[in-house]
Amino acid sequence: MRTSRVSIERSEARSEMTTTMRAEIDEQPDVLRRTIDALLPAVRPLRALVGETRQVLFIGRGSSDNAAVYGRYLTEVRGGRLATLASPSVTTAYRRRLDLAGVLAVALSQSGRTEEIIDTLSWARDCGARTVAVTNAAGSPLSEIAEVSLITQAGVERAVPATKTYTTQLAALAVFGLSLGDDGDGFADALKQVPEAVAEVLADPGDVDAMAEALTGARAIVVSGRGYAYSTALELALKLKEACYVNTTGLSYADLVHGPIAVFDAATPALLVAADDGPMVDQVAQLAERVRTAGAPAYGIGGGDALRVACTMALPGTSLREDLAPIALIVPGQLLVEVLARKLGIDPDEPRGLSKVTQT
Amino acid sequence: MRTSRVSIERSEARSEMTTTMRAEIDEQPDVLRRTIDALLPAVRPLRALVGETRQVLFIGRGSSDNAAVYGRYLTEVRGGRLATLASPSVTTAYRRRLDLAGVLAVALSQSGRTEEIIDTLSWARDCGARTVAVTNAAGSPLSEIAEVSLITQAGVERAVPATKTYTTQLAALAVFGLSLGDDGDGFADALKQVPEAVAEVLADPGDVDAMAEALTGARAIVVSGRGYAYSTALELALKLKEACYVNTTGLSYADLVHGPIAVFDAATPALLVAADDGPMVDQVAQLAERVRTAGAPAYGIGGGDALRVACTMALPGTSLREDLAPIALIVPGQLLVEVLARKLGIDPDEPRGLSKVTQT
Repeated sequence: MRTSRVSIERSEARSEMTTTMRAEIDEQPDVLRRTIDALLPAVRPLRALVGETRQVLFIGRGSSDNAAVYGRYLTEVRGGRLATLASPSVTTAYRRRLDLAGVLAVALSQSGRTEEIIDTLSWARDCGARTVAVTNAAGSPLSEIAEVSLITQAGVERAVPATKTYTTQLAALAVFGLSLGDDGDGFADALKQVPEAVAEVLADPGDVDAMAEALTGARAIVVSGRGYAYSTALELALKLKEACYVNTTGLSYADLVHGPIAVFDAATPALLVAADDGPMVDQVAQLAERVRTAGAPAYGIGGGDALRVACTMALPGTSLREDLAPIALIVPGQLLVEVLARKLGIDPDEPRGLSKVTQT
Repeated sequence: MRTSRVSIERSEARSEMTTTMRAEIDEQPDVLRRTIDALLPAVRPLRALVGETRQVLFIGRGSSDNAAVYGRYLTEVRGGRLATLASPSVTTAYRRRLDLAGVLAVALSQSGRTEEIIDTLSWARDCGARTVAVTNAAGSPLSEIAEVSLITQAGVERAVPATKTYTTQLAALAVFGLSLGDDGDGFADALKQVPEAVAEVLADPGDVDAMAEALTGARAIVVSGRGYAYSTALELALKLKEACYVNTTGLSYADLVHGPIAVFDAATPALLVAADDGPMVDQVAQLAERVRTAGAPAYGIGGGDALRVACTMALPGTSLREDLAPIALIVPGQLLVEVLARKLGIDPDEPRGLSKVTQT
């Protein structure tokens, strides 16, 4: 909590207004600590569910769907199990039943009240799946359905763009990831270091203001990442659309090099995210060079020295291991969105077109 | 083939150049007929593989991944089986093995030579999956791996943006869809009508030139659809990025209303696609109204009268039933991309940044 206060003061010093969004970004070390402490005891009942199933089906929309992409990589790469992102319309619009015996359905909704997600988890249960909920609202309809509920401890989120409810969802998924395998690789100890790693990002975020200033003239932005950090790219793209009204596409590295690289020009920069280690760093650094060769600026978040030197401008990422890095790696992106929104004359706490609970 | 020739002459009359892309668009009724005729006998071996598995894993990138989204809805809604879109990086970058017993892996690559897709199908086989390939190249490395290969009959595609190789992939997936269930619903007969339906779209495509003209000033475009037509929205968004260099986002209806609706303004129109029937038409028409209320133009493709009257401007879609409509519904989009590229001074046959076989 101490780090957060320092960051808030610093923010006030360089800006005319302090937003609720910024205050909530700064709460993250604290709420992540509380969430991890609260959820670690759930590893035991989660392991029981995992032991009785063979694959995982994630159910989410918006930021929760981006969190599910992180969960998907944890499930496959760490857990060695097939993971699927559900298409809720199969149940809500087409009313089709599938055979989900052997499937563990994990539904994410910060409010726990999005009807489509509740309906899809109920449907999964009725189709034979076992059920887990990840929500910030104890006692919500979603948590009532699930056999195990992972209640995140983000507290009330007042700014419309999800920040602390998103990173605490990721932390809950990391706890789920812990239950998917033994801990021979030190994942549990590394998870406990996450709040401190997020505090470090907040204490030394790099020159966010300069990068935001550079992005004020962007006609569009393409955000890209690969593997675990793909979730970060998708979430950052969503935030830029929601809170800055910038037409932003979130693409995996591989999908980007399969064609849409043609969209880059001086007014359409790339924003590339990567953990500091892992097999993706070099690929993403090469992508930065390719984007710059195409005449567009490439902005980096994380990726260590390799990505930093390949980019026009970069913000430091996190030293967290790659399979936990997404929890901290979104934080420079959140800071960037908050500053860019204000530079564009938008109140990031209440952008147009959004409400906290979306029904589709 | 007769219809195609008529369309080519018409195109020449209103334009200074006839592109290879346009000629290949016009070949589609013919190559779809040949593909469907060639692949219907594969229903029997496909049924055997389906009978020995319980779920489907699709493997593709770029346009092939968009085709896989259609395959996914067929598998779940028509076949009642869980479908997953693979993350190839799990194998190619993280080298992780999953237990894929009971899984039918379906890999799509028009060239049959994209290494990532070949590697991922080999990996799936080694992890216990049964295997199907969908490719336009008989004898290609991808078809050598698979137990059953569905060889599309698109012929050589010379323009870089995939058109006839994409729609014939969809036709191959429709044949796969036929193998997923009995034919109590007349799907097989309806499938045989697809080439004629595509010829009808080409014979009377509506005022493509006017819609392309209206889009020349777009800073960015958001393409949206839901359910089966979501595949069409993704493919149209990819084509607009690849061949027109317009920053375009393809989003499902539900993901769009979960926040990014804020991006719309007078220079950021929506392009909405829907079959003429099915449960999605009314939702998409309501989305068109919501976009226009936000001050942005909404352009429609298909969706019958409901979408047409809700939109600023619309092109006719197809009367094909919803679960086959994507094969014809992309065609007005292809025509639109070809005209828009030329209006923007781009040669659609050879846009920058693309080659026919992409290695990642």
